[in-house]
Amino acid sequence: MLTSLEILCVLPLGLLQNRISEIMTTELERTKPWEILSQYLTSGDANYVKEYISDLSSEELTSLISHLSDENRKTLLTMLDPQDAVELIEEIPYVQAAQIMEDLETTEAAAIINEMRSDDQADFLAEFDTKDTEAIITEMMPEKAENVRKLITYAQNTAGGLMITEFLSFEESSTVGEVADHLRENADKYERYNVQYIYVTSNNKFVGVLRVRDLVLTRPDVPMSRIVIRNALTVKDTATLEELIRFFNTHDFYGVPVMKDEDELVGVVLRKHILAEEAELANKELLETQGIVGGEELRTMPTLLRSRRRLSWLSVNILLNIAAASVIAFYQDILSSVIALAVFLPIISDMSGCSGNQAVAVSLRELSLGVVKPFEVLRVLLQEFRVGLINGLILGLLIGAAAWIWKGNVYLGMVVGGALMINTVVAVSIGGTIPLILKRFSMDPALASGPILTTITDMLGFFLALTFASASLSYIS
Amino acid sequence: MLTSLEILCVLPLGLLQNRISEIMTTELERTKPWEILSQYLTSGDANYVKEYISDLSSEELTSLISHLSDENRKTLLTMLDPQDAVELIEEIPYVQAAQIMEDLETTEAAAIINEMRSDDQADFLAEFDTKDTEAIITEMMPEKAENVRKLITYAQNTAGGLMITEFLSFEESSTVGEVADHLRENADKYERYNVQYIYVTSNNKFVGVLRVRDLVLTRPDVPMSRIVIRNALTVKDTATLEELIRFFNTHDFYGVPVMKDEDELVGVVLRKHILAEEAELANKELLETQGIVGGEELRTMPTLLRSRRRLSWLSVNILLNIAAASVIAFYQDILSSVIALAVFLPIISDMSGCSGNQAVAVSLRELSLGVVKPFEVLRVLLQEFRVGLINGLILGLLIGAAAWIWKGNVYLGMVVGGALMINTVVAVSIGGTIPLILKRFSMDPALASGPILTTITDMLGFFLALTFASASLSYIS
Repeated sequence: MLTSLEILCVLPLGLLQNRISEIMTTELERTKPWEILSQYLTSGDANYVKEYISDLSSEELTSLISHLSDENRKTLLTMLDPQDAVELIEEIPYVQAAQIMEDLETTEAAAIINEMRSDDQADFLAEFDTKDTEAIITEMMPEKAENVRKLITYAQNTAGGLMITEFLSFEESSTVGEVADHLRENADKYERYNVQYIYVTSNNKFVGVLRVRDLVLTRPDVPMSRIVIRNALTVKDTATLEELIRFFNTHDFYGVPVMKDEDELVGVVLRKHILAEEAELANKELLETQGIVGGEELRTMPTLLRSRRRLSWLSVNILLNIAAASVIAFYQDILSSVIALAVFLPIISDMSGCSGNQAVAVSLRELSLGVVKPFEVLRVLLQEFRVGLINGLILGLLIGAAAWIWKGNVYLGMVVGGALMINTVVAVSIGGTIPLILKRFSMDPALASGPILTTITDMLGFFLALTFASASLSYIS
Repeated sequence: MLTSLEILCVLPLGLLQNRISEIMTTELERTKPWEILSQYLTSGDANYVKEYISDLSSEELTSLISHLSDENRKTLLTMLDPQDAVELIEEIPYVQAAQIMEDLETTEAAAIINEMRSDDQADFLAEFDTKDTEAIITEMMPEKAENVRKLITYAQNTAGGLMITEFLSFEESSTVGEVADHLRENADKYERYNVQYIYVTSNNKFVGVLRVRDLVLTRPDVPMSRIVIRNALTVKDTATLEELIRFFNTHDFYGVPVMKDEDELVGVVLRKHILAEEAELANKELLETQGIVGGEELRTMPTLLRSRRRLSWLSVNILLNIAAASVIAFYQDILSSVIALAVFLPIISDMSGCSGNQAVAVSLRELSLGVVKPFEVLRVLLQEFRVGLINGLILGLLIGAAAWIWKGNVYLGMVVGGALMINTVVAVSIGGTIPLILKRFSMDPALASGPILTTITDMLGFFLALTFASASLSYIS
């Protein structure tokens, strides 16, 4: 029988131990798919490779590729037919695919890019430098090369950079029967197109749109001009990602036609691509607020590149930190009289940073939802001030009480608590407004808000604690 | 003429001043749409209100509603017809809509929810407590009530909770002509449905799928059983959001049928809804890493609620901070001998936190992309250790040099630099692995990684700096 002591202590510990040894075993003894694939890649048999990866889900492929060596990753892509390589690339995350593509030779990259959908072509080409891009385009099929040359002139986060150029358009004089015949004869080709809508033109000028399924309900001899919807919504090729996100928030369409110079139909932006970009945007903000800058980082990227990119952010931060800490250096004499303060300075710095960052996060979110506009600084200031006041009061009382109890000196408690109280109010108020002000001046709020905030609140926090101490030196030392 | 001094100093200042006064003017003198709407709401004329908001874009509506008082927001929703209220709700962000709906009376909420699409009904009902939910369902139309009762039994982030129940299904004995006739006769009703696919059943058991546009190419007398695609992919009603994200990453479908008990078709999960949930997930992670917990926060929510939710996170953090700072308290004597150290302790704490959080961000991202699995702790540890070593070395040298130059004592530089160096290696290594370990034990990595990381690195950083100082006390004091 088990005693209560055993039940309380030994049983949970035993369970935890089992769980840990289970985890270790899984990690160590698991069959490793990347080792199997590496063998196939070394053997050079493309059919084995193709068959092996075709059974894998998108997630298994992603994990598998992240375990291959740089060399094997290159071999994998070049060993497959270009069409199969494109299918593989479409399965894995873009940042992972871009990393492999960049390593390929011009000819190899060109063969694969040639088989991609037009918007993917433009995206991947943007990852190469100008010289390589030109070399790759030269190797592509002439018709596709001309098309992609137009696409890469657009900025990436505009309708022109996000649109696909594979769409169905017919002159308004065509009849429903002619269009249906054409669709039937080219069914294979259109399989990969956006076939929700048919766009109607007149002498290459955009006239309107109709849904493919509307053809079902119409007699074959009716011309397109009779059934086309003429007041169709369109976007300009220069429309920004933010405008497109708003467009699809408001309109429940699968896609929207893109116009150059008012009425030349140049492409179609699909809702699904914009939704995917919206998720990317949120992920980019998440990485930036945590100090990952200069694009996404995968751990399969070279260590030196990862290290350098992270340092670019850290080295700015360390300078700001030194600047803030110089406030402490200035008040060294006071600190050596009341050494207990040194315990509280890091707490004040860290807690004000936390409170301020909460307000930063809410502002980033409200900006992206559109419930607050960059010019509404005063309104946000007021709304954050109220929260800062309550939380500053409570946190100040907590830390003040801790200092009082620890040293038995109520004045020390007042110095420390008062400093944290005031500093929290300021941190929360400016944390809420900094993102709006940065946005207003077209700077990136996710990237810069954190360091600006913590520098200000560190300096102020140290200054407040040390001047309060200086003023009450006879009571607390 | 301008002197160089004026060009350098006065011109930019003048420009900045103009810019600032322009910003203030815009904020103060702008026509305020919410004041106009508030007047219409007070006058009680529903037609004015409806006309006024119908001209606004989704974004303008969102901003407008965020400026209304709680009372006016309620009035707005109850003044409109339920159908118009639903249209309004579909335009604005979910979190904003949920906030207003919660304030309504049961009867008012029931009338509006009754007009929603089935998945929205379930989502909004989940915002009310059990008693209110029951009261609202009782007021709904019987058929819809029965449907939504089934839906709310599913967990929100499963296929059952995310699916819509408005879909087209026909028995396999129906002919193409019969189906086309039915679609034509009910065109209005199906306008709001997912009409990409037609699902085919046999005695209520799922048989397969075909695309609406396939009907175009088939003679009217052919039965559905002849053209249906039988090996269609489906998902279980218990499939998780992560599984659905992966499904749509792998398969380029507009939607996927949802099965209960193998072959009972209960709904359809749409790609666009899953993409929207994916963006939500990234936003939730962003808020959590910055300490916004317990759901989204809008500044229109009550101050006390916002304050309380933020405090729940801050109060845990302040305890962890006090625990970490107690290391300093323990070494007070050393600190008072070398007061210069007090300047560097907050820098060591902050910089290690920054370095570690970068690694946390990369792990969160790699987990969500699927390039790393929760059991690959050792692999990530190794990959982060290398980056930590390089960056620790550089940051340590920087801060060590700063200390040396400032105090002219190379030993002080070695103490401070050495502590930051080692602490950075540890912070980066554990920052990368904590999210994997938390995920492995089914805890939320975005929420808990930060506080755990900074507590460990604060304690270790203070400990290292102060023991190094203690060991070399005769050289640095």
